[in-house]
Amino acid sequence: MKITEITAQPFKYKSRHGRDNEGHGHPGPEIDATQTLVTIKTDEGAEGYMFGAQKSVVDEHVAPIVLGEDPFDREKIWQKLRHMQRIAPSGLTDRLIGVIDVALWDLAGRHLNMPVHKLLGGYREKVLAYASTMVGDEIENGLATPEDYGRFAEWAIKERGYKAFKLHTWQPPIAWAPSVKMDIAACAAVREAVGPDIPLMLDSYHYYNRMDALALGRGLEELDFYWFEEPMDEASMSSYKWLCDQLDIPVIGPETMGGKMFTRAEWIKNGACDLSRSGVGDVGGLSPLMKCAHLAESFNMACEVHGGGPGNLNALGAMGMPGEFYERGLLHPFIDYEEPAQYLNTLFDPMDEEGYVHMPTRAGIGLDINFDYITENLI
Amino acid sequence: MKITEITAQPFKYKSRHGRDNEGHGHPGPEIDATQTLVTIKTDEGAEGYMFGAQKSVVDEHVAPIVLGEDPFDREKIWQKLRHMQRIAPSGLTDRLIGVIDVALWDLAGRHLNMPVHKLLGGYREKVLAYASTMVGDEIENGLATPEDYGRFAEWAIKERGYKAFKLHTWQPPIAWAPSVKMDIAACAAVREAVGPDIPLMLDSYHYYNRMDALALGRGLEELDFYWFEEPMDEASMSSYKWLCDQLDIPVIGPETMGGKMFTRAEWIKNGACDLSRSGVGDVGGLSPLMKCAHLAESFNMACEVHGGGPGNLNALGAMGMPGEFYERGLLHPFIDYEEPAQYLNTLFDPMDEEGYVHMPTRAGIGLDINFDYITENLI
Repeated sequence: MKITEITAQPFKYKSRHGRDNEGHGHPGPEIDATQTLVTIKTDEGAEGYMFGAQKSVVDEHVAPIVLGEDPFDREKIWQKLRHMQRIAPSGLTDRLIGVIDVALWDLAGRHLNMPVHKLLGGYREKVLAYASTMVGDEIENGLATPEDYGRFAEWAIKERGYKAFKLHTWQPPIAWAPSVKMDIAACAAVREAVGPDIPLMLDSYHYYNRMDALALGRGLEELDFYWFEEPMDEASMSSYKWLCDQLDIPVIGPETMGGKMFTRAEWIKNGACDLSRSGVGDVGGLSPLMKCAHLAESFNMACEVHGGGPGNLNALGAMGMPGEFYERGLLHPFIDYEEPAQYLNTLFDPMDEEGYVHMPTRAGIGLDINFDYITENLI
Repeated sequence: MKITEITAQPFKYKSRHGRDNEGHGHPGPEIDATQTLVTIKTDEGAEGYMFGAQKSVVDEHVAPIVLGEDPFDREKIWQKLRHMQRIAPSGLTDRLIGVIDVALWDLAGRHLNMPVHKLLGGYREKVLAYASTMVGDEIENGLATPEDYGRFAEWAIKERGYKAFKLHTWQPPIAWAPSVKMDIAACAAVREAVGPDIPLMLDSYHYYNRMDALALGRGLEELDFYWFEEPMDEASMSSYKWLCDQLDIPVIGPETMGGKMFTRAEWIKNGACDLSRSGVGDVGGLSPLMKCAHLAESFNMACEVHGGGPGNLNALGAMGMPGEFYERGLLHPFIDYEEPAQYLNTLFDPMDEEGYVHMPTRAGIGLDINFDYITENLI
């Protein structure tokens, strides 16, 4: 079987997710947003899909590599894309090659009429989700105060049924952010709201210095938090080793630092993390995410998966030393996460009343795509 | 889909492989040997096969774990088997759970009508083989002298078309073995016979002490050997770190040391190897072999696969930082490796004239089993 076509089709959809001028998502008025559908087709009629990727990069850099290849040669294609990253112009990011890899997995699953987590080798049928908030804001009754976080956590745990909760706190361009004191106040309010038995995590400002990170970590220890995520620039592995050496609370990482499984290997080897972290968008696909999980497992370290979506969920279904949680979000009091995006017929990751997201049973990666909507809204 | 049946059926076949009283294989008179066919069947008629495993262990320890499971839940089944190893009586070895894992992969491939290396995600269509000899003997014109090795290597490289050659040299119960001096003499004879450009490897006596191992390694460096394999007991990782620190020739390992991917991780982390080594029989299956390969790749280290057979060959087809060679053998001047075992219709790993073994195209792991022969020879 040979790949005969790869397209990236941008289309419009309505969204209430805005972004501040430092790139953080917040609720906002309805806007015309853009999404891109990547489609891979073969001479035998097999098809695979995933969202994301830039059309120009797919056309110029990905198509020449994948056209003519066997779509089941995922490892060959991924290694070629990885090598091309070194010399290609910017745009052939890990996130983008991850979209291609997931689309190839989707094609495999659809062609063989199997969910991808079963192709990988299934481990579990469902995974606990944690509610993962948007970053703090200045919206009244939003996520503007520690009390806002407490109230939202109480709803998430006691009403919606989540079994764990993660805060993203305040960051620039909010004038007074970041603030270790306010971060700890928000975490304390959440702990107070949900009681002592709920696992809580913090993903704070990513450019704190060592002293701030240590002070924040000590505060989280007192609040019995479950993990502490990316307080400092991850390019300095030594800083994380320093932090791990002093804190009892598990430090998790790296998340956004480039270098795929190679970076994860260095962090584990050097004692710079207590939990490993990878997501399809961080490491360039589902295939390398499994490599990262296998690497971590080889050191008895759980790999907690970064972000939601189909690639990450399928990985969580097949990891033998599993990350404990699926990251569901990003959530906000003024966003209805349960409503699927317009280009999907159904929500990809519905959560049951006990706080579990179940593995998709649909062939492929499990997306239920509204192709009509996309066709009608092509740009 | 649910597993409804797992059987291990011992059967007789004729073999000219004998064993000395320390367990090493040598050519000998035709004997009645025993092999075991493991069969896994499901309620939907899917079937998977692999050879090996003891009937009593399969019946008593494996069947209770796998019956009723989805055969595509390979990771779940493997982790259960792994956990059971800690408390089960001896017999539930890594080698045995590896047979079960490979049979599950075979079932997946047969059911989906795909070769297993493509399910894993293909990387290459063929792999160079190296000729891997039996251990030394005292058979006239066999592998009794350095000259015997030289003559056999000349045939392997110049007549049969192998592009690389590995010696297993003399070991007890041969009275004068092991001998560093004789090992080096054999290696020198092989180098002399094949010229300077052929990669050569040595797998010597596995219980040399450090001084012997270092002397042997120095000898191999002078002969420009490609890797140096398991000269000492692998339970002492420190010894291999010590050896690596001094030698330029790549030290490869661990091979037979227990501990699956965990042991490989420690060796890599601690600088106890230059090349990693794993095989389906060493680490408990194709699934963990891929974990070991992913681990090694995360440190830019090639994982050279130990042993031949379908699990190892399929892995070599899907490894993105590939082990360079497929181990073909064990070979001996008085054994015709090209003749398939009686329970196979065709040879599993035919080699072309350029020294390549090609990935199987048959659905599953690629074995062409003579079921009639097995049925007629059941014990």
